[in-house]
Amino acid sequence: MPRNREVVHRRLQQAALELFLERGYDQTTTAEIAARAGVTQRTFFRHFTDKRDTLFGQEIRLQTALVDAVAHAPPHLTPVQMILFALQAVEAIFVEQRAFIEPRYAVIAATPALNERELTKTTALTGLLASALEQRGITREIATLAAQASMAACNYAMTAWLADSSVQLRIHFDRAFTELSRLFSKSLPEL
Amino acid sequence: MPRNREVVHRRLQQAALELFLERGYDQTTTAEIAARAGVTQRTFFRHFTDKRDTLFGQEIRLQTALVDAVAHAPPHLTPVQMILFALQAVEAIFVEQRAFIEPRYAVIAATPALNERELTKTTALTGLLASALEQRGITREIATLAAQASMAACNYAMTAWLADSSVQLRIHFDRAFTELSRLFSKSLPEL
Repeated sequence: MPRNREVVHRRLQQAALELFLERGYDQTTTAEIAARAGVTQRTFFRHFTDKRDTLFGQEIRLQTALVDAVAHAPPHLTPVQMILFALQAVEAIFVEQRAFIEPRYAVIAATPALNERELTKTTALTGLLASALEQRGITREIATLAAQASMAACNYAMTAWLADSSVQLRIHFDRAFTELSRLFSKSLPEL
Repeated sequence: MPRNREVVHRRLQQAALELFLERGYDQTTTAEIAARAGVTQRTFFRHFTDKRDTLFGQEIRLQTALVDAVAHAPPHLTPVQMILFALQAVEAIFVEQRAFIEPRYAVIAATPALNERELTKTTALTGLLASALEQRGITREIATLAAQASMAACNYAMTAWLADSSVQLRIHFDRAFTELSRLFSKSLPEL
């Protein structure tokens, strides 16, 4: 995106989030979002297809980058290491969106329909990561297990990063995967 | 449930699943389900609040039993071991429902609205397990990580069990947790 277009894009995202938080998602119109961002409604529709798109538009970019990174991860890595590699490869996308993550979560949590959409999107992303691992020769069952468990580690890392951004996200990813490894490493009892 | 009531309950579940698979979820009525099961519609409503309930009614029982098992897990167990303990404690519920699991998945997968509901329910269950761990003195962050990753292992175990029921589900749970431990145990690379 050219620099100016990018500035407008973010201003619209910001305006949308502010309005969703102030008056609720359902009560906000695209006209109001455009006005708050100081642009015409026509400009709004050059950036987003509808108001929901201001919350979910980034997902496709993230998704494509993650799948691409798994496809190009060094071949000697284990499945879980490939996903960690991919998450660290897309760090810049998360960093760029840093300011939007918390208000976005707040809006989604307050709106059941958005909540369901978020869950559906996250599940779809996990499925795509599993498929990307399968393309690397991992069985479907192991690929799914690795992708689902890695998403748990990713969530843990994001929470830690939002609480402490003085530590780089890639370090939080490392720590989360190590923590998960530690949690499951204890020998399991025969019951 | 008294024995006879249980038989009718299952016959209704079975009839509902057959009809959902034959003609689609949206096209099936409670009257048709009752007729297929050979009972009156009034009897149907003594067992289920609506047709959706034939698919999701068991969840509350499972949920209650799992949370209860975490609450009563031996205190020396790690968080992940507590969840494994709980899954193995409710094995009988899964075994009892064994015949319904695959057709149920098929119906849910074919119906987007049910899919979203299933995701919402699974997420809620994961949250309840995390809360149950918190009650055992685990921090919210670790409890959430342990619960989410354990659900990945649970899914893996269920798939393996449906493919090979000659091995007890509790053994599949053990194997899944061991597999997850193995997947994450490789030392993680510094990138």
